[in-house]
Amino acid sequence: MIFEGSEKKLELVVQDSVNLLAWPESRWLELIAAAGTQAISKVENSHGRAYLLSESSLFVWRDRMTMITCGTTTLADSALKACEYLQSEDIAAIFYERKNEYFPQMQKSDFFADARKLNQVIPGRAYRLGHADEHHLFLYHSCRQFEPRKTDTTLEILMYGLRGRAREAFNEENRSGEWIRMQTGLDRLFSGYSVDDHAFSPIGYSLNAINGARYYTIHVTPQDESPYVSFETNLNSRRDMEATIKSVLEVFQPRAFDVVYFDAKAEREIVNINGYVTRGAVREKLGCGFNVYYSHHSEEQAVETAAYLLEI
Amino acid sequence: MIFEGSEKKLELVVQDSVNLLAWPESRWLELIAAAGTQAISKVENSHGRAYLLSESSLFVWRDRMTMITCGTTTLADSALKACEYLQSEDIAAIFYERKNEYFPQMQKSDFFADARKLNQVIPGRAYRLGHADEHHLFLYHSCRQFEPRKTDTTLEILMYGLRGRAREAFNEENRSGEWIRMQTGLDRLFSGYSVDDHAFSPIGYSLNAINGARYYTIHVTPQDESPYVSFETNLNSRRDMEATIKSVLEVFQPRAFDVVYFDAKAEREIVNINGYVTRGAVREKLGCGFNVYYSHHSEEQAVETAAYLLEI
Repeated sequence: MIFEGSEKKLELVVQDSVNLLAWPESRWLELIAAAGTQAISKVENSHGRAYLLSESSLFVWRDRMTMITCGTTTLADSALKACEYLQSEDIAAIFYERKNEYFPQMQKSDFFADARKLNQVIPGRAYRLGHADEHHLFLYHSCRQFEPRKTDTTLEILMYGLRGRAREAFNEENRSGEWIRMQTGLDRLFSGYSVDDHAFSPIGYSLNAINGARYYTIHVTPQDESPYVSFETNLNSRRDMEATIKSVLEVFQPRAFDVVYFDAKAEREIVNINGYVTRGAVREKLGCGFNVYYSHHSEEQAVETAAYLLEI
Repeated sequence: MIFEGSEKKLELVVQDSVNLLAWPESRWLELIAAAGTQAISKVENSHGRAYLLSESSLFVWRDRMTMITCGTTTLADSALKACEYLQSEDIAAIFYERKNEYFPQMQKSDFFADARKLNQVIPGRAYRLGHADEHHLFLYHSCRQFEPRKTDTTLEILMYGLRGRAREAFNEENRSGEWIRMQTGLDRLFSGYSVDDHAFSPIGYSLNAINGARYYTIHVTPQDESPYVSFETNLNSRRDMEATIKSVLEVFQPRAFDVVYFDAKAEREIVNINGYVTRGAVREKLGCGFNVYYSHHSEEQAVETAAYLLEI
């Protein structure tokens, strides 16, 4: 079965004048529907709310929404819908990302079209991080001046090609979320979080977890045609980023992965992880106050593979 | 300017009962038009004819046609059109290839749709060579038993990211073919060939060359958005393949490249080229008598790059 795991991501930050948690639930369901996805479940605390979606996740906090959607969703439309409910001056920043996809020809829009739409609402800039023929991340951001807090960091680990125990466990059909967490070691990754997960049928797995204002989220598309896992969190300081990457890689044992990191500081060292080669890196100070870091890593030894017989 | 350099390739081999050189030129122009491209010029000898196209090349020999087209061409339609002029039993073999593209969302069809079309005319098999998230080649071939001659070999070198002198020279606007050949060292690559080349305006370059039944062809899309060069030849024995690869790489100095090789023999060694890392390899004995070899290679040291500002 062909399923696009690679995701689009939207982060919309508002000024103090707005409290997104005060928006009625019907509005969030409207934004979710605008992307062509639907809410499956939610978990919340006094800081925020996390919706598990049929295609990934939506996190809502007082000052921001973070929405991640895979498949053939139209996330830029959710962004435009959210802006309809805001005065222009209430918008502090918009970030919109798209990873290069497995099946771009099946998407309803491409990044360029999405960026043009967003640019009409909030003027911004669009970048490609990484060579066009290699793994790369498209990034659009608004150009308004924005001063992120020092603790305002986001770490994304985007993984390709599950191996070993993870590949096996995630490909077992019709298992429960609990079975998957125990079997893969996901249950030992972080502690103290309220976890809301969902095992799709026959395969596929999503998890949201919140703890105060901290979150992490995991989405697994184990299909052999396009094996993909995304992990995202704001729980990291720059200091323990490498440790987090290592523990996540230990669970999923990917053949290759990207690291995407946003923070307020200027320079950071290029990530190097034992057993992987760093194949490319981009560090850019964005016009909006954030710095973005992107790097791609793949297995140290190229492995000879068999030709993959396609169903036509 | 966005231009898709990555190509589709069709090879159609006929039985002795047919002489493709006897087909009227109007028929070839019809096949060329079916792909949505047009002939610019041609060069011929007693063995065959090479058309330079507005999107790459068509070679016609007594027993086969080889057509390579880039851009948003519809090469599978040329294959179907050619089959209309042939009895089914006259067709010895069909091969159809598509490299992963820079801008797949802009294509008029994807490989799966093309393969389904071909499969209805001549039942065959479709493969992906290489991981789906990495550089990879799609290959469709007919399943009829076919016995290629020992000398029936094809070498393709598909190159990404021009560097150095080649990048500069191919990006100079409105230069003549002769200037490009001299400046880049292309004129010293092989001798004894009748050469037909074309420098596109403002940039872009194509070359066909024939010598008896041997040919080579080169297509250069130097645009910084999607820098790509293809080289293909049947002049190689397995013995001097590595030497040919080295001399071609010397001209174009790519950041990364693929090697695709077809021949009748079973096993070949994995290509290793100084200064490049072999990132993946596939060796497959196809059901039709040929063996295919595919490998991807990239620069040894990952280089940090700047974010690439996109025009939206």
